[in-house]
Amino acid sequence: MELHPQLAADCHELGRWPEGTLLLHKNATVRWFILVPDTDATDLLDALPALQQNLLARCTAISKVLKEDLSYPKVNFGAIGNVVPQLHLHVVGRHQDDPCWPAPVWGHLQESREYEAAEIEGLKELFASRHRLLVDR
Amino acid sequence: MELHPQLAADCHELGRWPEGTLLLHKNATVRWFILVPDTDATDLLDALPALQQNLLARCTAISKVLKEDLSYPKVNFGAIGNVVPQLHLHVVGRHQDDPCWPAPVWGHLQESREYEAAEIEGLKELFASRHRLLVDR
Repeated sequence: MELHPQLAADCHELGRWPEGTLLLHKNATVRWFILVPDTDATDLLDALPALQQNLLARCTAISKVLKEDLSYPKVNFGAIGNVVPQLHLHVVGRHQDDPCWPAPVWGHLQESREYEAAEIEGLKELFASRHRLLVDR
Repeated sequence: MELHPQLAADCHELGRWPEGTLLLHKNATVRWFILVPDTDATDLLDALPALQQNLLARCTAISKVLKEDLSYPKVNFGAIGNVVPQLHLHVVGRHQDDPCWPAPVWGHLQESREYEAAEIEGLKELFASRHRLLVDR
């Protein structure tokens, strides 16, 4: 399934699971993952229960990486899609010292920084080794 | 389970399901429902898979009311909780003419209006008759 151009522009592609593509938002001031499911549904709550369940399981894996491997105390989860109609699920690591705490990131994150290539490779490796993400190397 | 005082202050209580309490945000410029599950988990993605599944099923019912009964073309879903630690799930009906489209409601909804009592009763009745919500009358 082709990525919406806005998602492709805003994110690095980390790899693929059978259910969809895992992206990393380019703004490195927070760890902001976006799962883009292979589905025509545009709202998470319109997806069939089996798909909802599989997607939640993947988002739970992302949340475990954020909390257990990257030490984030809090995870924000959202399915919004008012601007980009292609279904995409946000899983965002948050802590009290991040640049827009306690506001949600959407429309509130003013600071920005780029990832180093090594940081992106490290995240790919983490998801590949722990959660069977299929990554290009 | 006792409601966090911030949720109690911001919302009308519509009724209860076995999994938790259904609230309606007091700002009537959008239809903004909040499900507060009976759980000690503070992040949706920390909840056990069976509970995630039950909660998603309830949120799907809320989404159906928004889309099928109230004619909203779009539903936003979020579990944030940076300010209020008690787990609560946002299910928000959105359309292109609402006061903060296409921004997410959190921190972007400036306009405000109160519900009429009859509107709240109508919503209670809808959830009670269609989705077995237990309401006080």
